Amino acid sequence: MKNLIEQVKKFRQERDWDQYHSPKNLAMALVVEAGELAEHFQWLTEKQSSNLPPGKMEEVREEIGDVLIYLANLCDKLGIDPIAAAQEKLEKNRHKYPAARVRGKSDKYSEYK
Amino acid sequence: MKNLIEQVKKFRQERDWDQYHSPKNLAMALVVEAGELAEHFQWLTEKQSSNLPPGKMEEVREEIGDVLIYLANLCDKLGIDPIAAAQEKLEKNRHKYPAARVRGKSDKYSEYK
Amino acid sequence: MKNLIEQVKKFRQERDWDQYHSPKNLAMALVVEAGELAEHFQWLTEKQSSNLPPGKMEEVREEIGDVLIYLANLCDKLGIDPIAAAQEKLEKNRHKYPAARVRGKSDKYSEYK
Amino acid sequence: MKNLIEQVKKFRQERDWDQYHSPKNLAMALVVEAGELAEHFQWLTEKQSSNLPPGKMEEVREEIGDVLIYLANLCDKLGIDPIAAAQEKLEKNRHKYPAARVRGKSDKYSEYK
Repeated sequence: MKNLIEQVKKFRQERDWDQYHSPKNLAMALVVEAGELAEHFQWLTEKQSSNLPPGKMEEVREEIGDVLIYLANLCDKLGIDPIAAAQEKLEKNRHKYPAARVRGKSDKYSEYK
Repeated sequence: MKNLIEQVKKFRQERDWDQYHSPKNLAMALVVEAGELAEHFQWLTEKQSSNLPPGKMEEVREEIGDVLIYLANLCDKLGIDPIAAAQEKLEKNRHKYPAARVRGKSDKYSEYK
Repeated sequence: MKNLIEQVKKFRQERDWDQYHSPKNLAMALVVEAGELAEHFQWLTEKQSSNLPPGKMEEVREEIGDVLIYLANLCDKLGIDPIAAAQEKLEKNRHKYPAARVRGKSDKYSEYK
Repeated sequence: MKNLIEQVKKFRQERDWDQYHSPKNLAMALVVEAGELAEHFQWLTEKQSSNLPPGKMEEVREEIGDVLIYLANLCDKLGIDPIAAAQEKLEKNRHKYPAARVRGKSDKYSEYK
């Protein structure tokens, strides 16, 4: 991930695009790309979404690349380490949803059962 | 990133949440979290977005963690390496937007100038 | 809809919020609200999403209100009549997806069948 | 709006697309379309977003049509009157942000001032 952040920074600077890449604009671009990723799944059943044909998988992979590129740019601009941020959030979630309590009961998801 | 993917996988399996985590649902959760991240920036000027006060920065950091957690889950489910996907997309973009041509002219962004 | 646009305009002006409500910011707020609406559905099966319990329905209804409020604000700012825009797009879609051809075959959705 | 809801319903039924149009899928399509709308604004300054050239305005208008079409479909499926939902939310907001208190101070937006 650190390499990727260096690469997107170099890419941006070589093109003099820093002026467009405010954190606000990058956050907006990130949600737009996440929408393009979601678009590939919107009419599929959940089961179909687990069995993408190769052509569709390639398109999805490219959208995932776009999402991560904007996330890397945003983290570079804000000075945030995204892996550390995710791991700390995961640790928080471990306490919020203890496995022993939610396992099988699927607490978070259970209100419609 | 590989570690993070292993960690989110373990987290999910310990809670028996695989049943909810279809690629479709994960892609939907990803765009929702990207929206929550964008929410922090929506009324800020671009300049303000580059100078977040510490409390806001901490909230933004947590949302970035959420985005990356869902991206890691989705990539695990689809068997996609997100770093490789981003790097290949970056390589594609290097050809699409050659630095020598777009530098200073900011091609992609220039239609309103 | 015309009444609603007048009402959101009055609401905005009484609070002197025009300064924050650039089309850019309103479009960002709209996608954020659409994400909050989607959040209510992300872990549901499609079937569950058709049978919301009353409390959830009320929350969904409020999110729909938020989405339409921002859409109305954006349309007011841009001078766009949203109903006319939707009806013209629908007319375009009638030609793009002729009922006689796509009916039963569900063209647009068929690639995974 | 009532006419539009009738029109999207007829459009959907003539094509036998009800099977794809679960509230879950429609909510997902709505956030995707809202992302496409936001995409038009992501690299613009706020000022530029208030002065769209005619060609861009036409594209934005079409995206607004798409957003409202999915919103109308979703409301039809859930039995929700979107105008009433928006007006009730506006009434709630009138109490949450009283004009006399927030005017000039721009309460909701002021934390970065």
